[in-house]
Amino acid sequence: MIIDGKQAAADLRVALANEVKALKESKGITPSLTVVLVGEDPASQVYVRNKAKQTMEVGMISNEIKMPADTSQTALLSQLALLNNDASIHGILVQLPLPKHIDESVVISAINPEKDVDGFHAMNSGRLLNGEAGALVPCTPQGCIILAKQHLGDDLSGQHAVVIGRSNIVGKPVALLLLQENCTVTIAHSRTKNLPEVCQQADILVAAVGRANFVQASWVKKGATVIDVGINRIEADSSEGKGSAKAKLVGDVDFDAVSEVCGAITPVPGGVGPMTIACLLKNTLEAAKLYG
Amino acid sequence: MIIDGKQAAADLRVALANEVKALKESKGITPSLTVVLVGEDPASQVYVRNKAKQTMEVGMISNEIKMPADTSQTALLSQLALLNNDASIHGILVQLPLPKHIDESVVISAINPEKDVDGFHAMNSGRLLNGEAGALVPCTPQGCIILAKQHLGDDLSGQHAVVIGRSNIVGKPVALLLLQENCTVTIAHSRTKNLPEVCQQADILVAAVGRANFVQASWVKKGATVIDVGINRIEADSSEGKGSAKAKLVGDVDFDAVSEVCGAITPVPGGVGPMTIACLLKNTLEAAKLYG
Repeated sequence: MIIDGKQAAADLRVALANEVKALKESKGITPSLTVVLVGEDPASQVYVRNKAKQTMEVGMISNEIKMPADTSQTALLSQLALLNNDASIHGILVQLPLPKHIDESVVISAINPEKDVDGFHAMNSGRLLNGEAGALVPCTPQGCIILAKQHLGDDLSGQHAVVIGRSNIVGKPVALLLLQENCTVTIAHSRTKNLPEVCQQADILVAAVGRANFVQASWVKKGATVIDVGINRIEADSSEGKGSAKAKLVGDVDFDAVSEVCGAITPVPGGVGPMTIACLLKNTLEAAKLYG
Repeated sequence: MIIDGKQAAADLRVALANEVKALKESKGITPSLTVVLVGEDPASQVYVRNKAKQTMEVGMISNEIKMPADTSQTALLSQLALLNNDASIHGILVQLPLPKHIDESVVISAINPEKDVDGFHAMNSGRLLNGEAGALVPCTPQGCIILAKQHLGDDLSGQHAVVIGRSNIVGKPVALLLLQENCTVTIAHSRTKNLPEVCQQADILVAAVGRANFVQASWVKKGATVIDVGINRIEADSSEGKGSAKAKLVGDVDFDAVSEVCGAITPVPGGVGPMTIACLLKNTLEAAKLYG
């Protein structure tokens, strides 16, 4: 089974649009998301445009603040202070990566945790770790759980989940969400010995390493659910006869071979990717409900 | 090998006493720890007395605030506000458990994270999760790592660590510390299937479940390092012939049988227990250095 992230994201957006409508009617609150983009990174511009489009589609207010690439850290922090104090704004997202002269960790910790819809602020990480109420949880990990449940149903209890990768953005938070779902969780990474054997135990295998086609079919248990978080740009096969090689997106999992073994798998593109923005909108609604 | 936690804690206190002395001489700062005890739980009174004694032994200022059992939550929060704002106090610890009419999570989140020497505040949990500077890390997990290194040396990289238990106080933070040490980490718990097989993979096995003699010898890989966090009070064997059965402390690990298989093990008592207060003093020094 191929898990259709595009469809799951569309379904989630429909549900969110209904909730947004209900919140407007019951409380008179329209959730509002502000995205701050510093500089002109082309990929970031595409992301920001998509975010704005989808934000409006679910009935929320979208606000884009674009600042020049040479914006000082102080100026960015001043901008964030204004947004933190603006009661009409429920979610603030600073598009990463930032220009090199700005310290991302300083910027992230300057966002009001109640508006930190990326879920990267230490207060939100800590609430996630401690299972406390009020956490805004990183978007991509939330998407992974939703997609795993598409195949396995809502009860993941007792499943052995193996997460490859231990980043703050994906690996660690997805491991904690799987633990919350009562999975036995193994976190593997570049220093792990016998990675194939460790992966072979996985009922749920989450790959978040950023290496194209890294996970091999021989590492995957028959019937496992495979969630591929990687988005790697590689040269397309030039045998197609077009003169210049084109770039092509692939995941961290050798999709064709692993598909033959696993029970379900998320494709790249069209798997976890589309869920990330949908979960960002979910967080914005959550922030408006919790703190608006 | 039996890992001597009493000796390791004494060694740590000697090192801390030297650091405290140096901090006094270089900066004129004497680290200061305030323990707040609400009510008259006998076990808590013993802990608090031991903390005070050891705090002074390493050259720090110890302050004990005792409040009656019927203290309101509001009154406790007011007391904490005073301590938060007192620049001469570097560490604040509210002794748990609190009387039932007080919400522990509200109290913990009311402590200034910079003085939260138990490391339970969400800001400290989040900094630990994200690997950010400035985290005050829970004491018992720190003790576990120090004891594992007594046997294995400083480099734990690539070891497979299995943690049984997922509490906020021990299981989850010790898993994160082991991950920081570049271990492959598996978190197991009551919903884990095939727990014996999962444990058999452990090069480092941490038991934090609170069930007397739970971990069996057949679950332990030959040569593994076993860290027993449990402190369980059981009836002593009455065959000793004394009329009334006495209570006796045992760990989560069947010590005698597991000792025959493992490479090293922490005893109960005298293993992880003594490390907890020593690491509390370490955190108090850390808070004074970072934020004093």
